[in-house]
Amino acid sequence: MIKQNSYVLFYYNHTKKWLQKISKNKSLHTHIGVIHHSDAIGKKYGSRIITNKDKYVYVLEPTIFDYIMKIQHGTQIVYPKDLGYIVARTGMQSGQRVVEIGTGSGALTTFAASIVKSRGHVYTFDVNEEFMKIAEKNIKKAGMSKYVTMKKMDLKTAKKIPVKDADITIIDLGDPWTVIPQARKMLKDSGAIVSICPTMNQLEKLVSSLVQNEFTDIECTENILRTIDAREGKTRHSFQAIGHTTYLCFARKAFFDKKPSRQKKKNLELKRHEPQNKIYSSAFKA
Amino acid sequence: MIKQNSYVLFYYNHTKKWLQKISKNKSLHTHIGVIHHSDAIGKKYGSRIITNKDKYVYVLEPTIFDYIMKIQHGTQIVYPKDLGYIVARTGMQSGQRVVEIGTGSGALTTFAASIVKSRGHVYTFDVNEEFMKIAEKNIKKAGMSKYVTMKKMDLKTAKKIPVKDADITIIDLGDPWTVIPQARKMLKDSGAIVSICPTMNQLEKLVSSLVQNEFTDIECTENILRTIDAREGKTRHSFQAIGHTTYLCFARKAFFDKKPSRQKKKNLELKRHEPQNKIYSSAFKA
Amino acid sequence: MIKQNSYVLFYYNHTKKWLQKISKNKSLHTHIGVIHHSDAIGKKYGSRIITNKDKYVYVLEPTIFDYIMKIQHGTQIVYPKDLGYIVARTGMQSGQRVVEIGTGSGALTTFAASIVKSRGHVYTFDVNEEFMKIAEKNIKKAGMSKYVTMKKMDLKTAKKIPVKDADITIIDLGDPWTVIPQARKMLKDSGAIVSICPTMNQLEKLVSSLVQNEFTDIECTENILRTIDAREGKTRHSFQAIGHTTYLCFARKAFFDKKPSRQKKKNLELKRHEPQNKIYSSAFKA
Amino acid sequence: MIKQNSYVLFYYNHTKKWLQKISKNKSLHTHIGVIHHSDAIGKKYGSRIITNKDKYVYVLEPTIFDYIMKIQHGTQIVYPKDLGYIVARTGMQSGQRVVEIGTGSGALTTFAASIVKSRGHVYTFDVNEEFMKIAEKNIKKAGMSKYVTMKKMDLKTAKKIPVKDADITIIDLGDPWTVIPQARKMLKDSGAIVSICPTMNQLEKLVSSLVQNEFTDIECTENILRTIDAREGKTRHSFQAIGHTTYLCFARKAFFDKKPSRQKKKNLELKRHEPQNKIYSSAFKA
Repeated sequence: MIKQNSYVLFYYNHTKKWLQKISKNKSLHTHIGVIHHSDAIGKKYGSRIITNKDKYVYVLEPTIFDYIMKIQHGTQIVYPKDLGYIVARTGMQSGQRVVEIGTGSGALTTFAASIVKSRGHVYTFDVNEEFMKIAEKNIKKAGMSKYVTMKKMDLKTAKKIPVKDADITIIDLGDPWTVIPQARKMLKDSGAIVSICPTMNQLEKLVSSLVQNEFTDIECTENILRTIDAREGKTRHSFQAIGHTTYLCFARKAFFDKKPSRQKKKNLELKRHEPQNKIYSSAFKA
Repeated sequence: MIKQNSYVLFYYNHTKKWLQKISKNKSLHTHIGVIHHSDAIGKKYGSRIITNKDKYVYVLEPTIFDYIMKIQHGTQIVYPKDLGYIVARTGMQSGQRVVEIGTGSGALTTFAASIVKSRGHVYTFDVNEEFMKIAEKNIKKAGMSKYVTMKKMDLKTAKKIPVKDADITIIDLGDPWTVIPQARKMLKDSGAIVSICPTMNQLEKLVSSLVQNEFTDIECTENILRTIDAREGKTRHSFQAIGHTTYLCFARKAFFDKKPSRQKKKNLELKRHEPQNKIYSSAFKA
Repeated sequence: MIKQNSYVLFYYNHTKKWLQKISKNKSLHTHIGVIHHSDAIGKKYGSRIITNKDKYVYVLEPTIFDYIMKIQHGTQIVYPKDLGYIVARTGMQSGQRVVEIGTGSGALTTFAASIVKSRGHVYTFDVNEEFMKIAEKNIKKAGMSKYVTMKKMDLKTAKKIPVKDADITIIDLGDPWTVIPQARKMLKDSGAIVSICPTMNQLEKLVSSLVQNEFTDIECTENILRTIDAREGKTRHSFQAIGHTTYLCFARKAFFDKKPSRQKKKNLELKRHEPQNKIYSSAFKA
Repeated sequence: MIKQNSYVLFYYNHTKKWLQKISKNKSLHTHIGVIHHSDAIGKKYGSRIITNKDKYVYVLEPTIFDYIMKIQHGTQIVYPKDLGYIVARTGMQSGQRVVEIGTGSGALTTFAASIVKSRGHVYTFDVNEEFMKIAEKNIKKAGMSKYVTMKKMDLKTAKKIPVKDADITIIDLGDPWTVIPQARKMLKDSGAIVSICPTMNQLEKLVSSLVQNEFTDIECTENILRTIDAREGKTRHSFQAIGHTTYLCFARKAFFDKKPSRQKKKNLELKRHEPQNKIYSSAFKA
C-alpha cells in the first residue's frame, strides 16, 4: 500500500518515468499532464492513476534498477547491462566482501550492496569529496547505507591497506593500473578483480599490469544490449540503439611461484605467463 | 588452503578448465598433460601446479560462474551474460523471494539462490523428473540446496498456487504464455516477471499475453557479449564470437482498473493499454 | 575545379554537411555561420572555406554515398551498410541487369545503377506515382537516369513479365512474398533474389515462399555498423549507435526437378527441400 | 547451359559448397557422396544433381561472392561484409580508377575490378612475389585480369608515383600510416582513402597520420554480420556467429590551406583540425 513518504516510480513509458517520494501536497508537472501525489496514496503498487491530460501512469514500487537509472550523477554511471555482467562473471553473491575503488556517483556501490547484503559488505573509496556526497545520498535513497562503508582515501599512495580478504575488488578509475598492487593486497586468494575501462587503451595497459602483478583468467569484454519491439506481425529490433558505455576487464589473483612441483626435465625453460598468453594470442595474424 | 574434498577449478585457459573435487589419489588426464590432485593439496587457492607436460595450471576457488559454466546439463542452460542482465533489470537482491517455472538443469536456480540467500529463497517447478534430478545435483554441488525448494508440478493445470508474494517470477518454458495467469498470482504487487525466449515468435506471443494479463513496463532485450584481446599494440575484438543464446522479456505486474481517478471529461475514451503501446509502436514504419 | 552549377558537399562534420548545386549568388545559412557559394567557385575539390563565424568547411566532390545520404525521401531508404552487403553477397557487378520491385525514394536504384553502368541497366517498378516522382529526381541528381528504366506497374497482378534474364532481382515491398513467382520469371538461371525485410515476420513468410518457389542458398542477415572514435590514448566505440534499419534475405533461383540423375536405390525417398533444411534447422533446440 | 570447362559452384549448404571447373571425367569426393562432373554437363545453372549417397547438390553459376569466398589465400582476405561497406562508403562505381596498396590474395582486387570494369581499372601493388602469384591466379579465375594492373613495388620507398588521379586508394598493410603521403599523391582532389585495420592500435596511428596529411571526413567503422534462421514459428538469430575480421578507416583528401577566404577578425586564431576534432571528441568523458 502506497503511503506518505513511500518511494514510487511513476511510469508512463520507457523514457518517461519519475522516481518520487510521496508527499500528499506535491504535484509533478510533466508534458503528459499533472500527476498528483495524493492520487497514489492508499493504492496498491502497480495501480494506475490518470493525469489531467487523461494519460495513464503506473505507480510502481522502485527496484534497485530504478534507483540506479534515476541516480543523481556527477560522473558517468555504470549501466545495468554492465552491472549485471560484473555480478555474473565474478559470481558475486550474498554474503561477500566487495571493495570498490572509485565510488563515483554510487551506482555500482548501490547495486553491489543490494547483492552482498545483509551479511556481506561493500567498502568504497574515493578522493573527490563532492562526488562522495552525491554518492552517499544516492546510496541512502536506495536503502543501502547500512551495507556500505565509504571512505575518502587515495589508494595509490595509501600506506596501510584498509580491507583484507575481499572476494571481489572493483576499480572504476581512469588509470586503473596504478592501484593493482593495492587491489591485490585487499583480495583473498584467487579473488576476483574487475575494472571499468571506457577505452581500449585502458584495457591494454591494465592487462599488462595484471599479468605483471600475477593475475590469471584475464578476460576483457564488451556487453551490447539491444531492445526488440515484439509486436504481432511486426517484430524487429528497436530503431533506437544503445551506444558504447564501457568495456570491462576481469581477472583472478594467482601466485606465479617459480618452483614447479613436478619438474621432469633438468633444464626446464618455463615461459612465465604461458597460460595467459594463450588467451590473447590465439590466431592473431594482424 | 586446498584440502581433500575441496572443490577447485584447474584453469589452463578460457577453454581448458576443469571443475574437480579434490581426491588425493585422483589424476586428471588432459591433452596438456596429467594433473595430479595431490599436487594441489596444501596449496593456497590461486597457486599454480605443473603437468607432466610442463604446462602451468592454476588451482582456483570455484565461483558461482564456474559452477554454472561447468554444470551438467540435459537442457540448454541460461548463460552468465543473460543471468546477469536478469538480476540487473529486475533489481534482484539478497532477501527476495524468486519463483522459477521450468527448472531445467538448475543454472538459473543456482545463480538466483546465490543472490537471494540467506534470507531469501528460490521456489522452482518442473514437470520432468529426469531434469530435476540433474538440477538437484547441480544445485547441491554449488552449495545452494538450502535456499532452494524444488517441486514437480505442472503450473499450467495447477489448481492451487504454491507461492505468494514473490518479488520475481522467471519462466523458462517453450510456451511461457501458458502460465502467465499463474505467474501473476504468485507475484507481489508490481512484482517482476522475466521470460527466457530463444525465438522471436515466443517474444511476440508472450508480449500479447502480458498485455492481456495486465503487465506494464514490458521490455524485450538481446544481450550480446563480445570478448576483446587486449595485447600491447595489437588490441582488437576476438576472432571468435559468441552466437545467439536467448532473448529475454521483462514486465511488471500492474492493475488495469477501469475507474480513472481524475476523469475530467464526461465521455473520456480511454485506450486500454495506451502507455504500453508507446513502447513498441514508436516510429514503426515497416 | 568547382564551377557554377557544380554539385558540392559542404562538409563540417559527420552530422553537419550539405549537398548543394553551386549558384554564385546563393548563400547557405547554418548554425555554424553563413556559407557563400561564391567562395567555393574556382577552388579545387577538397579545399576549405570559412564561414562568417570563422568555422572551416570543406568543399568535397559528392560521391554516390553523399547523394544517397542526402536523398529526398518519402519512404524509408536502404542505408549504405545494407546497400554494400547487397552488392557483396550477390556479387553485383558492372554490366549486369538488375530488377528492382519497389522503387521507393530511389536510393537503392541509384546505388545499383552506379555499379552496373555503363553497359548494365536497372529496371525499377513501383505503383506509387508520388514516390516515383521523388525517385526520378533523386536518380537524376546523382547522374544515373541514363542507366535506369522506371515504370509504374503492379507486378503482383502483371500479366506480362517486363524483363527477362536479370542477374539480380531486388524486392523492397511490405509483402515481398507476393511477387516471388514474378521475380523468379525475370531472373536468369541461378540468378539472385534479394529482399529488404524490416521485420522478422517478413523474413519468416518470405523464406517459406522462397522454398516453395524453388530457390536455394537462402540466407537471412542483419548488418550492424558501429563507429569507432580512434583518438590517441582514448580509442573506443562511439557513444552514439546506429539502430535497426532492416534485415536482408538472399537466395538463388534453382530447379527442383524430381528426376534424380543418379538414383541408386529403387525406393528412394527424397526429402524435397533437404539441403535448405540444413540451413535453418542446424542445432535448433528452443 | 553448363559445358566442359564452365566454372560451377556445387552447393549443398552454406558450409558445404565447392567451386569447380567442369571436366567431364572428374569426380568430387565429399562426405555427402561422390559428385560426378559429367552429371552437370548439359544442365541449366540452378539444376540439382544427386550424389551416390542420395544427397541433392545444386549446380550454381559462380558469382564474385563465390570466387572470393573460395579464394586460395596465403594471407587473411577481406570478407564480403567489409568489401560491401568499402564500396558503399566510398561510393565506388563503375568507371573509376582504384589503387590498392597490398594485393594480398587478391580478394579485394577481384571485387573492386568487378565494380569498376569495364572502363575503370584497378592498380595493385605488393612486395611479396609469392602472394602476388597466388593473387594473379585468383584474379584470373574470376575473369578480372583485364581490369587489373599488378606491380611489385614498395610504395614506402618509391621515388615515382605510379598512378595519378585515382578515385579511391585502398591500403591493406600492417603499417598503413607509412604510405599515406604516397597514397595522397595518387588521389584526385577530394578522393577517398580506405584502410583495412585489424587492430585498434592501427586505427589510432592511422587517424593521426590522416589528420597530419590533410585528410577530412575521417570515419572508423566496424561491420558486424549476423545471420538469422527464419523458420516458421522458430525465428531467431543463428547460434553461430561471425567473429572479428577487421576495422575499416575512411577519409577524403582535403587541402588545409591556411589563408581563410572570409577572415573577419584581425587576430583570428584558427584551430587547425577543428572540424575533425568534432568527430571523435564528442561527449568523451573517459
